[in-house]
Amino acid sequence: MNDSEFQVQGFRAAAVKSGIRGKDRLDLGLIVSDRPAAVAGVFTTSLVKAAPVLLDQARCKGGRAQAILVNSGIANACTGEEGMRLARLTTAMAADALNISEELVQVCSTGIIGQQLELACFQRGIPKAAQSLRADGLDEVARAIMTTDTVKKTAVRTALVDGKPVRLAGMAKGAGMIMPNMATMLAFILTDAKISPDLLQRLLKKSVAATFNAITVDGDTSTNDTVLLLANGMAEHPPLAEERPEALAAFAAALTDLCRELALMIVRDGEGATKLVTVRVRGARSEAEADRAARAVANSNLVKTAFFGEDANWGRIIAALGRSGAIFEQSRVDIAFDGVFMVRSGLGQGAEAEKEATAVLRKREFAVTIDLHAGEGEKEIHTCDFSLDYVKINADYRS
Amino acid sequence: MNDSEFQVQGFRAAAVKSGIRGKDRLDLGLIVSDRPAAVAGVFTTSLVKAAPVLLDQARCKGGRAQAILVNSGIANACTGEEGMRLARLTTAMAADALNISEELVQVCSTGIIGQQLELACFQRGIPKAAQSLRADGLDEVARAIMTTDTVKKTAVRTALVDGKPVRLAGMAKGAGMIMPNMATMLAFILTDAKISPDLLQRLLKKSVAATFNAITVDGDTSTNDTVLLLANGMAEHPPLAEERPEALAAFAAALTDLCRELALMIVRDGEGATKLVTVRVRGARSEAEADRAARAVANSNLVKTAFFGEDANWGRIIAALGRSGAIFEQSRVDIAFDGVFMVRSGLGQGAEAEKEATAVLRKREFAVTIDLHAGEGEKEIHTCDFSLDYVKINADYRS
Repeated sequence: MNDSEFQVQGFRAAAVKSGIRGKDRLDLGLIVSDRPAAVAGVFTTSLVKAAPVLLDQARCKGGRAQAILVNSGIANACTGEEGMRLARLTTAMAADALNISEELVQVCSTGIIGQQLELACFQRGIPKAAQSLRADGLDEVARAIMTTDTVKKTAVRTALVDGKPVRLAGMAKGAGMIMPNMATMLAFILTDAKISPDLLQRLLKKSVAATFNAITVDGDTSTNDTVLLLANGMAEHPPLAEERPEALAAFAAALTDLCRELALMIVRDGEGATKLVTVRVRGARSEAEADRAARAVANSNLVKTAFFGEDANWGRIIAALGRSGAIFEQSRVDIAFDGVFMVRSGLGQGAEAEKEATAVLRKREFAVTIDLHAGEGEKEIHTCDFSLDYVKINADYRS
Repeated sequence: MNDSEFQVQGFRAAAVKSGIRGKDRLDLGLIVSDRPAAVAGVFTTSLVKAAPVLLDQARCKGGRAQAILVNSGIANACTGEEGMRLARLTTAMAADALNISEELVQVCSTGIIGQQLELACFQRGIPKAAQSLRADGLDEVARAIMTTDTVKKTAVRTALVDGKPVRLAGMAKGAGMIMPNMATMLAFILTDAKISPDLLQRLLKKSVAATFNAITVDGDTSTNDTVLLLANGMAEHPPLAEERPEALAAFAAALTDLCRELALMIVRDGEGATKLVTVRVRGARSEAEADRAARAVANSNLVKTAFFGEDANWGRIIAALGRSGAIFEQSRVDIAFDGVFMVRSGLGQGAEAEKEATAVLRKREFAVTIDLHAGEGEKEIHTCDFSLDYVKINADYRS
């Protein structure tokens, strides 16, 4: 994808080096819609929410947004009243530079918890960004939001809605403190679809549940997680509505697909990760139990270090299932690595199976499929392996 | 402590190299009471229980035991009907060698999940161990049960009960797959106290809740966790009973104290651990919420890697509290490292506090005290840091 592809009509963007992260790093981004757009947002489930999250949640209720201001380096989390004041002030500065209402500015921060924003950086950076806005500037913003990310995460889709092309462009950041129910991750998705804020919110929530909330790197949930979706209505299709389910489904499918691509990019780029592993639980008594079982396996340090060691260690998988809270008969469990059954009816399948399974584990991406044979519940969670580099990164990085 | 101290009247023990773990490692142990003893047991909460756990649970109900047979190398977990048959058969072999009833033999296994026991090793090893039993043989058994443990874990206590000395000697193993609700850990405690099995069980359960079930290394719970307590009644005090609370309290205090010493040994020897950290949560709305909050912090990879990096990263602690499920006001939280307050009323206390806190983190043992100011609930969980060596050990070791 080149820069000219990573854009949506009616949206412009820019990023600048504002000084938050030193002289030489892009750290402040601005995304602006030519006109007020329908907005939907999904936020961290943590009780401890960063100031920008609290502000955005309140503003999302208005249903409209025209700009997203984002900085990396400082999370503006655990910053008290002063943090709220600064979050509000920076959006006012952006509103001023763009000549729009403050209420139409969403703000996101990612980085170190507990530090206050330095206002001078925003005073310098915001006007500069506002003057540099351009249609192909989104790519720059995607780079500005990277923290421990090693790759930039962007994706585009085009949905055909009533025969008309609808464009979606998304970006995300995130590599650690990543656990379902929103990770230390930000994602911004822009579309020219015509759609009401209520309907947009419903679609986003559903897409996020199956994508961003079905990944884990380290089981930790952050204070700043945010997915924002802006729809400026510049595409030519008739407005999306519940009454026209086919058109809606076409848009929803493209949205979920885009979210999944971004979510998997986050797992692949998980701190220290060398492998992307899909943990698929079938045959649980309910979807909720499938979810618990899949998360127990996907978050087990012992399972994840075994993936790193390319060791088809099904004992650790069974141990994780046993403590997950899901109810099943040990003597009915099947476990397969891609197509290779390592366990049938609770028993290991011997040296030949192990040899084949070990070959699967050498791949960069594979699936572990667990059938509990206790019901119809299913769930997929995407995780990564747990390497020496995870510890190196997190023993050094102040997040 | 020298070997002559690590014994209790009326108990003999021995360990041998049976071949389960190659030629040169102690891997099979036998502990025998001269007469049937009251027995109490606490076992893994995992739904997936190893064959020996199932067998011991059933036999514990009889209230009496005279011998413990234990092997390392193979866990006899996820081994189906055949695993149950072999567990039963090995206890019959021990009963035969000791000329006691099979029902009086408890059996424990620790090691690789999913492999069957090799009967030949037990046929060779059990008679040899039975012939070598001696009063100072417990130390040998403590060595035979080590797996990824780097140190042998033994402790003794003497309680004064009605003016008479009551002796307790305990051993434990465990370093990984360690999480409250029993870890991949075995512990055997022997005493000459006079006490009924029912009362013994009640005391053990209470002691374990505050000690072995309040530690974590990696948040994983194993299939084989077992604590067995045998009381052979050879001490000279009048039998312990609810009606004599002072005598009971003296014994219970010694038991809990012994269990705590062994439990902390397990955390200090946590796979790759370089630090022992006590996470103390106060002021939660309930003890249950204090427990959730303390465990969320104590199990967070991000918090534990920060401990390894000696980084007073309170942001990660707050993030873990936020997702823990405990309810509190972010603006009231205090966090201290030993006596140094890093956070007061939800706000960081600046560079000077951080400098002092960093000095605390350089210590091998310290406490993190969190006050949520939301109620009266309290809980302490003992954890370790998360180092490069944890990953090295677990990417290589098949457990």
